[in-house]
Amino acid sequence: MRLALAQLNTTVGDLTGNCALLRDAYRRASDAGADLMLAPELAITGYPPRDLLAKRRFVQDNLRALDELAGAVGETGLLVGYVDNNPNRPGRDYLNAAALIHRGKIVARRYKTLLPTYDVFDEDRYFQPAEANTIVEFAGVKIAITICEDIWNAEDRGSGRLYRRDPVEELATTGQPNLILNISASPFHLGKESLRSEMLRAVALKYGVPLAYCNLVGGNDELVFDGQSLVFDAAGKLLTQGAAFREDLLIVDIPGASVPPVVPAVHCAAIHDALVLGLRDYVRKCGFKSVVLGLSGGIDSAVTAALAVAALGRENVMGVSLPSQFSSQGSLDDAKALAGNLGIRYEVVPIQESFAKLRGSCQELFRGLPEDTTEENMQARIRGAILMAISNKFGHLLLTTGNKSELAVGYCTLYGDMNGGLGVIADVPKTMVYEIAGYINRDRRIIPEASITKPPSAELRPNQTDQDSLPPYEVLDVILKRYIEESQSAAEIIAMTGYDEKLVRDITRKIDLNEYKRKQAPPCLRVTTKAFGIGRRVPIAQRYVE
Amino acid sequence: MRLALAQLNTTVGDLTGNCALLRDAYRRASDAGADLMLAPELAITGYPPRDLLAKRRFVQDNLRALDELAGAVGETGLLVGYVDNNPNRPGRDYLNAAALIHRGKIVARRYKTLLPTYDVFDEDRYFQPAEANTIVEFAGVKIAITICEDIWNAEDRGSGRLYRRDPVEELATTGQPNLILNISASPFHLGKESLRSEMLRAVALKYGVPLAYCNLVGGNDELVFDGQSLVFDAAGKLLTQGAAFREDLLIVDIPGASVPPVVPAVHCAAIHDALVLGLRDYVRKCGFKSVVLGLSGGIDSAVTAALAVAALGRENVMGVSLPSQFSSQGSLDDAKALAGNLGIRYEVVPIQESFAKLRGSCQELFRGLPEDTTEENMQARIRGAILMAISNKFGHLLLTTGNKSELAVGYCTLYGDMNGGLGVIADVPKTMVYEIAGYINRDRRIIPEASITKPPSAELRPNQTDQDSLPPYEVLDVILKRYIEESQSAAEIIAMTGYDEKLVRDITRKIDLNEYKRKQAPPCLRVTTKAFGIGRRVPIAQRYVE
Repeated sequence: MRLALAQLNTTVGDLTGNCALLRDAYRRASDAGADLMLAPELAITGYPPRDLLAKRRFVQDNLRALDELAGAVGETGLLVGYVDNNPNRPGRDYLNAAALIHRGKIVARRYKTLLPTYDVFDEDRYFQPAEANTIVEFAGVKIAITICEDIWNAEDRGSGRLYRRDPVEELATTGQPNLILNISASPFHLGKESLRSEMLRAVALKYGVPLAYCNLVGGNDELVFDGQSLVFDAAGKLLTQGAAFREDLLIVDIPGASVPPVVPAVHCAAIHDALVLGLRDYVRKCGFKSVVLGLSGGIDSAVTAALAVAALGRENVMGVSLPSQFSSQGSLDDAKALAGNLGIRYEVVPIQESFAKLRGSCQELFRGLPEDTTEENMQARIRGAILMAISNKFGHLLLTTGNKSELAVGYCTLYGDMNGGLGVIADVPKTMVYEIAGYINRDRRIIPEASITKPPSAELRPNQTDQDSLPPYEVLDVILKRYIEESQSAAEIIAMTGYDEKLVRDITRKIDLNEYKRKQAPPCLRVTTKAFGIGRRVPIAQRYVE
Repeated sequence: MRLALAQLNTTVGDLTGNCALLRDAYRRASDAGADLMLAPELAITGYPPRDLLAKRRFVQDNLRALDELAGAVGETGLLVGYVDNNPNRPGRDYLNAAALIHRGKIVARRYKTLLPTYDVFDEDRYFQPAEANTIVEFAGVKIAITICEDIWNAEDRGSGRLYRRDPVEELATTGQPNLILNISASPFHLGKESLRSEMLRAVALKYGVPLAYCNLVGGNDELVFDGQSLVFDAAGKLLTQGAAFREDLLIVDIPGASVPPVVPAVHCAAIHDALVLGLRDYVRKCGFKSVVLGLSGGIDSAVTAALAVAALGRENVMGVSLPSQFSSQGSLDDAKALAGNLGIRYEVVPIQESFAKLRGSCQELFRGLPEDTTEENMQARIRGAILMAISNKFGHLLLTTGNKSELAVGYCTLYGDMNGGLGVIADVPKTMVYEIAGYINRDRRIIPEASITKPPSAELRPNQTDQDSLPPYEVLDVILKRYIEESQSAAEIIAMTGYDEKLVRDITRKIDLNEYKRKQAPPCLRVTTKAFGIGRRVPIAQRYVE
């Protein structure tokens, strides 16, 4: 049997556009003599559709799109994800579904059994699980059709398995499949590829049949889907592997000759590519072409600018320096040099006079009170207002350049440097920002040396550095990873790292207290196992202290 | 049997504080000779704890708090909500639980079966449903213990019932209860009281036993819990009813004499009280004492200021006028009169010079380009920056004064008038803002007549009114309610209202396009069936057009 795996970049809600992608891939699969083409989970609607599913008409439209698509299917079969109505009550309105289409007709419909409802996933909110799982016969092959999470039940989630049902086991015991198919929308995070590959290989081996896994690719708000579709033979040998972070159409004969796995990219390369894809797709899918960002001369804005150029081309990126009396000449030079190295448009808009006037307008009110972070925030907010004015006037999307470490502890100004439509590196800890900078400079110096080597500073008062308020980033990032990604308590972190108790508790407290800032942050591209955003839902008005 | 219903205002995460509330209520219930006191769902942790449950230590601490609380319980029993570990795997880590405590010991534990996972609720994310439901005997009475949603299965949710299990029916068939208890955290929305009361009465009647329902009260981020606990006798007659929007301790003998139900308040009074409670609790539970807000002379900021005074007292509210060259003298006079009527501190900070400088700094860059909304947004952003400076300098929480109608269509400036820690009336449609203004003025004129009667205007350019860009609010609000609260499509709205097609599609398109602004809005107090915020999860980068 010849399979085609269409690793497509769908857009949420774009039923027409998604079906056009499907038809185009289908034609190529058909030309290549494939017996069956796989497309990702919910390829018709895009993933995740979230509360678009509250629109009854949206689901009707997706069913109509599926029917029209069926009309274009000939001898080569098509397995594609869509949303189906749930005919059985009581229950949820919808099913997360896969249609097997052949010769213009839907010949089988199968439904997702395990509905992820944790981290960034909310599928219990929308879908009823499948009642039962049965084998589908196609072209003489007995096929076990599964949708994403259905195949993940072996995974131990901290304190044990999450689900009582095992759809693959149900399929194996009620029929004897010759082939397992899995259509997915499995988002990237650091380390996910190897986890996924090992898990899928183990399933192929356990049941002794070939397994084909077709994943979504592309950015959708916070989520970046990495593609990297996989096909294993019955012995768990890799037959083919899809490209990472771009569309691909794999053609594979089952059984076929095994191939050596593509060695996973070094992790900063993977993160770099994930961010480029997430950034490009957010801009494109929101209907923008170009972006603007503030260039401080520091490493965060430099890395963000380089990612933007990789995503959109240098002609679509504008960098703006917004110097004040506290900006060093070095920072200005570094910003300018970066813009020159990247070949992007570069403008300088000094904020000194606006700052003086804004501060002057509050002079009466603040009489007798000492200067504090109020005046620092004012500078950040003037910069934010100017960048938004440029965004408004020219139609460039403003990018937010803050990293995860500063967003975690609130070392950033709401309505100031937090302004923007997308937090490009907001899930990248500062220490990893340095690694990505090294990767960006791997062939030639794009980010100026000084931006990498000088002590990080917000330059909001004379001689300020980040480490006036924060521990070294090497220490901070360890605490953040343990607290945010691994849900360790302050006491556990102290015991396991030997760090000073006061330091650790100060940091975890800062993280808790700054939930209100993150509530108003733009969407952040997710690259770690726990990003700020939809996958982390912490109350603001709360008083728990560990 | 004498029951006590402790309608408490817990704080999320404040284990110590919540247990202190419980102990205090328990002492009073015990003094009143109650056999059993009921406390709300998850009273130990506060509701909703959300991802605090990802902290393993948090759940351990809640169990320790429960044990300590048990030590204080004597002859009067206590039924209280907490989070329990789930001993059965595979499954989720936790159970939404109720402990029945007597004479220092937990004598029974029961678990929630129906876990709401829709709108603002995410309980499938955290909890495993109860395996089975069995009757508990206490003081010779056979009791059916249920937790919130467990009793709501009769409800038809649009297209039919949601759940296959019916915990009340399970309890009735496995035992013969003499009493049904329900501990809840049921948030307010307009019309919820009558819905709830009818549903509970029907359950009491169906099973022919008395029913006591103890609800949470207080604000927690976006949610306002209204209290209004209820006790019905076996014939469905009301025995007692808790206060709305404040703590209460009900003592009731079962069976007892029925009382006439408190006639529900007129709806704008209920919304007024809900907003006052939500505002007070957000400020208090976030550790603030005082607030600041911009006073434009318009109705939105006037209503918000009046709500703030009702919530916090006039000494804790500061109003600031931020006039520009486009502000009318009338608006300034109205703002000042309002502040005088409310007796709050009032300041005037003109923005004209700051605006001139900020605009001047972009002059070079914008040369040859016409003025547009960029310059309007600049004014809003200077106002936002000044209000945040006041917030930073004095430690007043900034309140956002925008209403639901403008937030829906994006008639507001991100990082400008959207600045603030809480959207007080952000779930109140403009037409309802007028009703609340009338209610606020019911005894004496607090909000100046002109703020109510003049055409609404953002005053960002000469002679601007809202209706330059928007249809009349009477029309807009009908479209919004149908589109957002009732999930009707544009086509359905056109067919059912007879409104102009172009108008309706223009509005629904604006709602969709402004998701990015709402993503960065502060939490909004929820008073309708569908508020912007956690209960409405619409992707930003999406292309569905109905």
